[in-house]
Amino acid sequence: MTIELFCFGESGNAYKAALALELSGMDWTPVHVDFFNGETRGEAFREINPMGEVPVLRDGDVTLTQSGVMQIYVTEKTGRFGGGTPEEAREVMRWMFWDNHKMSSQAGMTRFLMNFLPEEKRPEGVIPFMQGRLKSAYATLDAHLAGRDWIVGEGVTNADLSCCGYLFYPEPFGFERAAWPEIDRWLANIERLPGWKHPYELMPGSPADRA
Amino acid sequence: MTIELFCFGESGNAYKAALALELSGMDWTPVHVDFFNGETRGEAFREINPMGEVPVLRDGDVTLTQSGVMQIYVTEKTGRFGGGTPEEAREVMRWMFWDNHKMSSQAGMTRFLMNFLPEEKRPEGVIPFMQGRLKSAYATLDAHLAGRDWIVGEGVTNADLSCCGYLFYPEPFGFERAAWPEIDRWLANIERLPGWKHPYELMPGSPADRA
Repeated sequence: MTIELFCFGESGNAYKAALALELSGMDWTPVHVDFFNGETRGEAFREINPMGEVPVLRDGDVTLTQSGVMQIYVTEKTGRFGGGTPEEAREVMRWMFWDNHKMSSQAGMTRFLMNFLPEEKRPEGVIPFMQGRLKSAYATLDAHLAGRDWIVGEGVTNADLSCCGYLFYPEPFGFERAAWPEIDRWLANIERLPGWKHPYELMPGSPADRA
Repeated sequence: MTIELFCFGESGNAYKAALALELSGMDWTPVHVDFFNGETRGEAFREINPMGEVPVLRDGDVTLTQSGVMQIYVTEKTGRFGGGTPEEAREVMRWMFWDNHKMSSQAGMTRFLMNFLPEEKRPEGVIPFMQGRLKSAYATLDAHLAGRDWIVGEGVTNADLSCCGYLFYPEPFGFERAAWPEIDRWLANIERLPGWKHPYELMPGSPADRA
């Protein structure tokens, strides 16, 4: 049975799951959620996910939310991306939690405020504050990647697929790829993986659709 | 060998790990980190954790950061708190990621800004914005707990030990326990667990020390 991923192109969290599914070679298909017209806030979607968030993964009887859980599910099913030893597995989880805690949560929100919310609704002061915190996160990641091709071990893992979630998007939110040479090199490694696709190619929906 | 947890009482993220260690009956001891005098920003601490964050867990050769990874480590060592079935295990992870992504990260920051940063340094507009987002998180958790004693299954898991991380603290940050009856009842269930301790009793350091 084909796995369904409820998603939309603009969601970096959905991208993490979509990329894990795609690169693992699993049989999956994206199902577009019309976030920008309020679909995630409607009753029908709350039936699927009471947290009201995208992405949602459905594989027969199994329904998952939270991109990190979907990434772990891909690892359970395929043996890919989880790290090669118990030590690597813990290190992969560490960077996934760090990303959820310190990077993607703030990056996703800042990008939303700067690009998808009407200017008059943007809360005063929040964007520069968030950008300052994000700069610390980019610095941590950039320093870690010095001398490394991948965040953990010798190949791509869920740590990479989580941390890159928001970093390929073209809309401005304060991340300048050229300013972080180690992150830039690492993102190029990800782009060269067989089957890699940009979020707007991997999932339906993009700002161009609403232009 | 006794596990060392580098922590301080005010850290809700450290509390998640400390509580898992304590309730599991593992042999552990807290090591105080003087966060408020800059210890986590110093060279010596960066040697222990390049992410510059508390908590850090050291068990012989194993050094872990990110409270979620420590909670999983306690589960690996003791079989406790991880959920009783593969479905429960995924559900536990889902709430741990959700908490890191949507609740504790914002709660910890808001509490820090409101209580531990001099008033003149508080960034304009950030606190009310964060409190609005947190209200959605409390509503999600409160609705989930209706008719349930624990977040997942029939007993305490890492989902509970993660989500409660900041909710026992007395300092104001916008969480009013009485306003969320299901959360209130669930927190009382946690307080009744044999061996439960308040963060300021379980870990060294509290605002009283600096008063």
